[in-house]
Amino acid sequence: MTLDEAPAQAGPLAPSQAGPLAWLADHAEARRAAGLRRELRPRTAGRPASDAVRVDLAGNDYLGLGRHPAVVAAAVRAVRDWGAGSTGSRLVTGSTTLHTDLEQALAAHMGFAAALVFSSGYTANLGVLTALAGPGDLIVSDALNHASIVDACRLSRAQVVITPHGETAAVAAALGAGGWRRAIVVTESVFSADGDAADLLALHDTARAHGALLVVDEAHGLGVVGPGGGGAVHAAGLAAEPDVVATATLSKALGGLGGAVLGSTALRDHLVDTARSFIFDTGLAPANVGAALAALDQLRAQPELAETVRAHARHLAELTGAPTPAGAVVSVILGEPETALAAAAACRASGVAVGCFRPPTVPAGTSRLRVAARADLTATDLAQVREAFAAAGILARVP
Amino acid sequence: MTLDEAPAQAGPLAPSQAGPLAWLADHAEARRAAGLRRELRPRTAGRPASDAVRVDLAGNDYLGLGRHPAVVAAAVRAVRDWGAGSTGSRLVTGSTTLHTDLEQALAAHMGFAAALVFSSGYTANLGVLTALAGPGDLIVSDALNHASIVDACRLSRAQVVITPHGETAAVAAALGAGGWRRAIVVTESVFSADGDAADLLALHDTARAHGALLVVDEAHGLGVVGPGGGGAVHAAGLAAEPDVVATATLSKALGGLGGAVLGSTALRDHLVDTARSFIFDTGLAPANVGAALAALDQLRAQPELAETVRAHARHLAELTGAPTPAGAVVSVILGEPETALAAAAACRASGVAVGCFRPPTVPAGTSRLRVAARADLTATDLAQVREAFAAAGILARVP
Repeated sequence: MTLDEAPAQAGPLAPSQAGPLAWLADHAEARRAAGLRRELRPRTAGRPASDAVRVDLAGNDYLGLGRHPAVVAAAVRAVRDWGAGSTGSRLVTGSTTLHTDLEQALAAHMGFAAALVFSSGYTANLGVLTALAGPGDLIVSDALNHASIVDACRLSRAQVVITPHGETAAVAAALGAGGWRRAIVVTESVFSADGDAADLLALHDTARAHGALLVVDEAHGLGVVGPGGGGAVHAAGLAAEPDVVATATLSKALGGLGGAVLGSTALRDHLVDTARSFIFDTGLAPANVGAALAALDQLRAQPELAETVRAHARHLAELTGAPTPAGAVVSVILGEPETALAAAAACRASGVAVGCFRPPTVPAGTSRLRVAARADLTATDLAQVREAFAAAGILARVP
Repeated sequence: MTLDEAPAQAGPLAPSQAGPLAWLADHAEARRAAGLRRELRPRTAGRPASDAVRVDLAGNDYLGLGRHPAVVAAAVRAVRDWGAGSTGSRLVTGSTTLHTDLEQALAAHMGFAAALVFSSGYTANLGVLTALAGPGDLIVSDALNHASIVDACRLSRAQVVITPHGETAAVAAALGAGGWRRAIVVTESVFSADGDAADLLALHDTARAHGALLVVDEAHGLGVVGPGGGGAVHAAGLAAEPDVVATATLSKALGGLGGAVLGSTALRDHLVDTARSFIFDTGLAPANVGAALAALDQLRAQPELAETVRAHARHLAELTGAPTPAGAVVSVILGEPETALAAAAACRASGVAVGCFRPPTVPAGTSRLRVAARADLTATDLAQVREAFAAAGILARVP
């Protein structure tokens, strides 16, 4: 539209003028036709997903710590001691001694020198990649990396090369093509939708051979992978390497809300000074910080939780014939959105909630059930899950 | 570096090889030399900013609701009823009936048909702008818009035109230049660093004349501007217009954590289906949602809080000779970073915490004190503030 075509001055919209958001209706109809409409299903208090659901395999509270009495008590204590909010940016009034305690505990648990807490895993990924890469730099990103990494790559304004999932040779080729000032290889340790693991040692060898930094998102590794759930980077012996950085979330195995970046103290200082999604965001609230700290305490007191959830995940994968999972997430790929929706509905009708991932969360043609194991599943739970999988037609035909 | 120049295989870094993050040290030194290093100052429980601070004019808890007993009690109840986290994305398991209740209360308070809660104001801005604009579209953004809006513009991949602060004619010129499919005018209602107001009626007239959408960030308007703190959009009579959308934060006047987008139900549905920072983020935790809901209840029960905080802000502005503020934020511009740091330190030594904003938060040469009024300041507090401003040399010489 040019100025000439525009009305001379503002006035009420005529009934024929639906306004600048009129296109939303057409887009909604197109998504509906493609089976891609989404509906929020609010849970009622104390129930996993609806009144009919008894076993929750849809959430990310893998260890059940979000409802652990010590975690709940710590959150309550933090609210009472500090109030409902952190009151400002971490740089102004939004840092409390609770934040510092959590950062030290998280760094120690994952084997890093330092940690910096963000308000979410999403903003942690945005923060670290935009603070470390810019125009003239190269980011090599796995094709199945989480949306927050994809968005972080875009926002960084670095050159971005997407490599086929898990293909370290493609990473080497991208780095080897040169033309960059600094380079970063970024991967999830356990992929959020597929549940498989990155080969961190191979990626680190490749990154180091080219002088690149390796950034690993431990969203689904922390609390699940490695001895005591210290994460995949720690388990691979890479946490102290000067060319390795990790990100993590407090909202999955730790059962709460928030995110973090882990690395050297120099990295932490750099992020405090320059990471826009840290500087220009309100600090994580005391209740969230206190809960995460207590959840870490529980993880240290019960290091067997990590192995338990992995064993449950392997069992669920065997039931469905899905690939052996690296962590808690089992991916049962069914194809079209309608097929996945129908299977999820059948599970739900049998009292078991599972995730149903469709585009744009996963690539077209790979709509799936995302089944998340929990450390606190009982034999009764597992029997009910087996029945639900049978009703949904996804039980593997094992001899 | 090309593949030929790279070492044939990975190995330990030699002492001479500091690794791909070695540049951090030089950058840190450059920031130190420019007075731009930042240090987190963790608060201890129950104190505003340090043991020596008695009056907090640095935080964003403008109405003091973050520590209100009813707000604290609601957060405690939510943690006990629901656990420490929402357990997943809002689309999977992360929506509770508390989220729905908050969305309805927020929409009603601000005069909109619908609201959608995000995990922060930062992700709310990212979500709405990236879901509504893309390549081929135009976003016209005020030069002093908050960093989250700047990042959202970048991430949207729309064409972005930055207009001089408050110049509606420049907005009209940008829209009139044409060449766009859809256009958005985005502004803060009360600017976060300068504390002045946008002329929403003029911007809306301009947007409508060109068929553009107006998006208003009410981060510093909600709870502060308009009758009962319903926000500037509501006060301007624009909340029901089909070409107006607002964003808000739960972490300032509401004293907690989180963000929201407000608009029509069609907009809300569109964001649920397509906003990446909504879909790919963990839902806000129950404690945060419950606290915000209780804070809104308090705001409805005490509609005078909004006028009280504005009156306190006008008083603080008169003390320093700063421009009359539109909301709670008073901006005392001092110039160079060192000058602002010294004045902030003098205030702190007199028991008053104020914000100190330096580049990149504000443009070079405009380092300043950011003084945030609170509704709960007493006459004793205000007397102490006057003394602190005198000690810092920022008291206006009034006849």
